Parts: sequence; C-alpha cells; structure tokens
Amino acid sequence: MNNSPEKIRMRGFAKRYPVDRAIAWIDSQTRAIQAETIRIDVATGRVLAEPIISPMNVPAFDRSAMDGYALIARETIGASESVPISFRLTGRSFPGSDPTSTVFPGTCVQIMTGAPIPGGADAVIPVEYTAIDAETVHVQQAIAQFKHLSKTGEDIRKEQEVFRAGHILRAQDLAMLAALGIPEISVIQQPRVRIILSGNELVKPGEPRGQHQIFEANSYLLKSLIPRDGGVIESVQFVNDERTAIKNALEKPGADLILISGGTSVGQEDFVPAVVNELGELAIHGIAMRPSSPSGMGKIGDSFVFLLPGNPVSCLCGYDFFAGRALRILAGYPAGWPHRQIQGRLKKKISSAVGRTDYCRVSVCQDETGAEPAGVIPLAISGASILSTTVQADGFVIIPENLEGYPAGENVIVNLYE
Amino acid sequence: MNNSPEKIRMRGFAKRYPVDRAIAWIDSQTRAIQAETIRIDVATGRVLAEPIISPMNVPAFDRSAMDGYALIARETIGASESVPISFRLTGRSFPGSDPTSTVFPGTCVQIMTGAPIPGGADAVIPVEYTAIDAETVHVQQAIAQFKHLSKTGEDIRKEQEVFRAGHILRAQDLAMLAALGIPEISVIQQPRVRIILSGNELVKPGEPRGQHQIFEANSYLLKSLIPRDGGVIESVQFVNDERTAIKNALEKPGADLILISGGTSVGQEDFVPAVVNELGELAIHGIAMRPSSPSGMGKIGDSFVFLLPGNPVSCLCGYDFFAGRALRILAGYPAGWPHRQIQGRLKKKISSAVGRTDYCRVSVCQDETGAEPAGVIPLAISGASILSTTVQADGFVIIPENLEGYPAGENVIVNLYE
Repeated sequence: MNNSPEKIRMRGFAKRYPVDRAIAWIDSQTRAIQAETIRIDVATGRVLAEPIISPMNVPAFDRSAMDGYALIARETIGASESVPISFRLTGRSFPGSDPTSTVFPGTCVQIMTGAPIPGGADAVIPVEYTAIDAETVHVQQAIAQFKHLSKTGEDIRKEQEVFRAGHILRAQDLAMLAALGIPEISVIQQPRVRIILSGNELVKPGEPRGQHQIFEANSYLLKSLIPRDGGVIESVQFVNDERTAIKNALEKPGADLILISGGTSVGQEDFVPAVVNELGELAIHGIAMRPSSPSGMGKIGDSFVFLLPGNPVSCLCGYDFFAGRALRILAGYPAGWPHRQIQGRLKKKISSAVGRTDYCRVSVCQDETGAEPAGVIPLAISGASILSTTVQADGFVIIPENLEGYPAGENVIVNLYE
Repeated sequence: MNNSPEKIRMRGFAKRYPVDRAIAWIDSQTRAIQAETIRIDVATGRVLAEPIISPMNVPAFDRSAMDGYALIARETIGASESVPISFRLTGRSFPGSDPTSTVFPGTCVQIMTGAPIPGGADAVIPVEYTAIDAETVHVQQAIAQFKHLSKTGEDIRKEQEVFRAGHILRAQDLAMLAALGIPEISVIQQPRVRIILSGNELVKPGEPRGQHQIFEANSYLLKSLIPRDGGVIESVQFVNDERTAIKNALEKPGADLILISGGTSVGQEDFVPAVVNELGELAIHGIAMRPSSPSGMGKIGDSFVFLLPGNPVSCLCGYDFFAGRALRILAGYPAGWPHRQIQGRLKKKISSAVGRTDYCRVSVCQDETGAEPAGVIPLAISGASILSTTVQADGFVIIPENLEGYPAGENVIVNLYE
C-alpha cells in the first residue's frame, strides 16, 4: 500500500487498510507499561503488577463467629430447653483483648463475635440458646465441637497466593488486601494520554462563537472515555491547522499515548499524517470502515499516536476501535471491547458492503422480563457528523467486512454504551 | 415485631424482617436529592436534573461534509473521467472562516470538511473525483444536489429537547452538550456518605497489630463501592465500642447517608441499634437473610443510617442489598442492581431455606464462544467472615425467600462483580 502522506494530500486515500490489520498492528506494538506502588485506598480498578502472597494467617487466631459463651462442646451433650446444663461464668473475651480467663470443665467464658477463643474451649454456644442467672449460664442446646469457631488460617493461609499478577482489583479484593495488613501494592501505571485538538474553526463551549465556527466537542468525548480504558489525561491542547503548531504539539514529551483529532485526513489542511511520518512512523492511515475511515496510527518515540477524525461520531468510533484498545493493553486490561454486550434481534435490516467494517448505532427495546431477546433498531451507519445518532443510541452493532449487512430478524450482538 | 434494641441485647433477634420489607422501606423513604450546577468536563455518569433544550441549530450553518469543491450540482451532469467538465476556481472556504467568494455558474470554490458552503453552491464534489490544473478544476463525475452538504439544523434543531431530566450522561452526551455550547449543567448532587467503623479490635493496615487485633477491611470495601452508586465519601471515622463514642460519631451533621460497620448486632457491646433509636428512628433491624442478618436501617435527622455487620462478607452483602440501593436512589440512578447480569446453568445445587433470602457467591466458567450458557459454581452462602469466598467469586446468585434453593442444572441469573 502506498499511503505516503505527501502523495495522498488532496488526492484521496490510495488504498484503505482492513480493520483487522490495524488491530493486529496495535496488538503487536503495545504491552502493559511499567509498575508503580500505590496505596490500596485508591486502587479500585487497578491491575496488579505482581502476585500477592499472604504474609499472615486470616484469621490470625482462633476466634468466635457468634456472640455467646465459649465452653467445652462435649459438656453440652443432652442439654435442652427443659433440661438445661449449667456452666459457671468465669470470664469474658471481647474483640481486640485477651480473654480474661481460660475454660475448665464446668465453666464458660462470655464471648463476642470476633473475640479470641479462650484456652480450653472448643466451641461457642450462641447467646440465643442460653439463659443467664447471676454467674451461671444455662445451656439449652447441645453444640458440636468447633461450632461457631473460626480456626486460624481458615480464610487465608500464610504464604498462600491470594491474587495473581494481572488481577483487576474490585472492592472485596481491596478489603482482602487490607485484612492481610497490606497498605500498598505494585500495580501497572495508568497510561498518560495527551489530547490534541486541531482546527481553526473550534471554539470552547461558553466562549463567543463566530458565525462559521463550531463548539469543540471531541475533547469532552475523549476525556470521558479515557478513564474507562485505564488512562489518565496528561493535557488537552488546542492547535490551529498549521504544520508548525501541529509539529510542536506532537513532539512534546510526556505521554504514553497521544490522541489527535482533526486534520488527520487527506485535505489541504490535513498536516497531521505528514507530521507523524516526519517525527516517527505513520504505520496505518486510511481504514476500510464507516465511519472513521480517515483514522490512522503510529509512533513518535515511545508514544503511540492515534489520528482521530474531527467529526465527533468518527472520533468516537475511531477511539473505540483502536485508541481505546491500545490504552487498555497499555493499562494491563483485557484488550477486547469493554462494553456490556447483549444479544438482540434486528427489527430492520442493516446494509453494509463487503470489504468494509461498519459501526452501526442502534437503539434497543428490551422486553421487561428478559425472556425474549431485545429488539434492535438500526439508527445510522453513515452521518459521521450527526452526533445525535449516538445520543439516541443505546449501543452499536459491528458489521464485519466479510458481510453485506444483516437481514431483519437476525440475532446480533449489541455493545451497550455505558 | 418487637425488636426494641434494649430488649434484644444479648437475647437474639425476636423476629427478622423479610428482605422485601427492608427494600420497601428504602423505596418509600428515599428520593433524588437536590440539584447543583457543574461543568460538563466532570459530568460523566452524572444525572441531569432538568431537560436540555438546544439553544442553537447544529450545524449552525450549511457546511461541507467532504474535502473538495463547492459548485452548482446541475452543472456536473454528464461529467465523466474521459469527458470531464471544467470549472474556474475562484476562491476557497476553510473551516472557521468565511468563504472568500460565492459560486457563480461555471465556477467552483475549494472547500474543506466542516467549512461553510459558499453562497450560490448547492453541492460538494469530493476531491477524489476531480483533477486540478492551475486555476481550473476538472470534474470527473456528476454530483446530485445537496450531496456532501450538511444542512443547518440537520443534527439538532434549535429549541429541540435533546435530553430528558434523569438522563445519565455518557461520553457522547457530553460531546453533544459541548457542541451545543453548553459549558455547565444542572445535575443531581452526589449524596455525601460518612463511614463509621466501630470495633476495639481494629487496626489500620500498615500499623502494628496486637495478637488479638485484626486489620480493618470494611472501610476499603465501602470506599470502593460508594462511587459506583453515585456517592462521595465525606469522611471515614474509627470509634471504639463505646456508647458515647458511637453516639458522638452518629450525631455529627453533614451526610446524606451514614454507613456504620460493627457493633450493629445484639451482643453486649453492640450499642449502635440503641443509639440510632435514641437519636432518630431504627426502622428495620434484623433481616431474614444470609449472610448479613444483623443489618439494619433508619434515619437520624435527614440522614439515612445503614447498620452493616462487621464481618466483611456480611458488610458487602448488606451494603449491596440495602445501602447501595438507597444511595442510587438519592443519586438519581435506577434503584435496581447495578451489576452486569448473565444467565448461567448451575453445576451444583444451592441449598437454602424458605423464609430466608440468600446471597450465594459463585464462580462462572464461560464458554469461549458464548453459545452455551455459562456454568455457575456455588462457592458459599454461609461463612460471613470468609472474605476469600468473595475474592474467588465472579459474582453472586440471590435465592429468594420463597425457595428452598436451586437444583443442579437450573438456569440462574448471576450478578457479576465488576
């Protein structure tokens, strides 16, 4: 393919790369970036860089699972409500303290949930099955040995591998790390993303707009998507459609990934492809897809660069197909689509063309009971500038390049927008 | 039911409320809190408090959807590659500027994607179907009227309702607000949550632990869950199991919702229920469920209070069933489970009891192709202190109170942990 940027300016793309080829390039070039140490307080959704080996037993000591009385189980045999067995209350064991006495035959120790089991005891009778009378506890039910007693290490054993490297941390995983006394962990760094918006016509919302200017939307789109894929936004920069301005913006250091929107196609003012080629490598430019065909990707130094069309629907589609995937891999996340997927039945046909991958915005009407598959209504494939199609949409359906579309009634996978 | 806190201390719950009754209390007491104005930069996932009516047309002017030449469509009739039709190039129209000339018969204006259509023109011929020779453009294909021309208001019309109140904002919605020039919006406030951890036995991870102390885990669990349900954490406070300390913590102002973990059951040191009853209303205490039966809920002044057991699995379950739901309603989110749900087939039976709702942690083995339903392996219902069951789990299955469980082979809904 000869898509040399200088050759194609104002000539159209000589050829377009299949989507699979662009994805293969991403997968071959990207891998999880280096690790950093962070506090577990802020680790939700982060990816472990190393396995976690437990430094301790959990529980660290035999403890009670109930409020009641610690005693010797075999001494309760035969106890009932009508014929209770009596134990002398000799002490207590409360959470966080040492028991005030050990248990001998005929005696018991009052114990709370989480408190250490006193020496001599081998079970806890719950308070509900007792009556108390001064210093005497009347046990109204027999209890089995080890009942309501959490044994040392029964949750986690010392030296046990609790998490593998690559595990994505959920709420309960952070609780587990806390329970193991681990305040800090090594996780994959969050890739730093720089956003560059190119376009003389762009005005920020809230500022006065000239008659032929437009309010800039793509930075808001991208700032909202990047955290989903594990990235952090390093900076957002606006540049005019000028070669020098674009070059200065692109060659700044300090990003794992650069997203540049606008000026990425083959028009007279589309300097981005040539500048990327000059500063580094423009690996892919022009993709057989709709919308978002003027997307591209490459590298400048160690930074990945994704060229996103200025039209907001194309920008969303190009980000979701390519930049988001690269970001997820850099962040240590699974590469695939991050969207919640449902199956649904097409209410109308979707027309596409062989040799081109399409991104069709759809709305979904879900049967309340969930018994029937959802009904899927195609909204639009084309109309790269019609942002309202994505606002009305609940999700999107991908039509792979080997199909001419889907007939009405076909079962399709819908990727739901969050 | 007589669950008066003073009566049940060290006596066990007199009776337990059904889960449905607790949920009905939440639904009857809570509604979305007041609105606030925020910048659209930080509005991902926020809930619109008012509908959005468009203040403008999008596009605000007729503009080009392609790079090419603006001209009069009917003048291209008959053009082909072998017999091109020539137009004199009289000017240009670039994004953000006014066109340098209007179009007259026999002339054309160079135009870029997004640039305003010059007066007189009614179509854009893409650059790919032209050849240029000094000041003459040779058009090689006929083009239909209005082709590649985005009409004023074709995306959004002025005064159109773009979003309803209650809409949860996604990336593309923020882009739309930006495109409409709306920098700030009115959204439901994020409920402020105070977390109180009660327990003499608790030590923070990273601090030295006495022999019978445990590392505190529930604050990490809750801090990780609260943002999912739309809340912001106002403070995290540790208190000893002392009535006065608990009372002082609970009566502090400045929260929409208070979560208190530990000291919530019916043991001798469980002061929380009585204190809530003293300061406000303990509406529900003791629930027919496993784990998490010592959960409770009520109000102190305008703050909702949720009593969560100290055992981490119970704390997670009690939060997910009750506090999370209240938080979502206060935040303007849908009340139902926020988890991704899948259907799966049980590989082993789950035993439960009629009259009790169970929260069964499960792991899921998904068929790669997704053709078969996922296989669901029950891990645990009991073992409220065994946090490792939630760490091994991919999600949970709820066994409603009217069932004795599910047989092996049954299709069940799994709520997946994030």
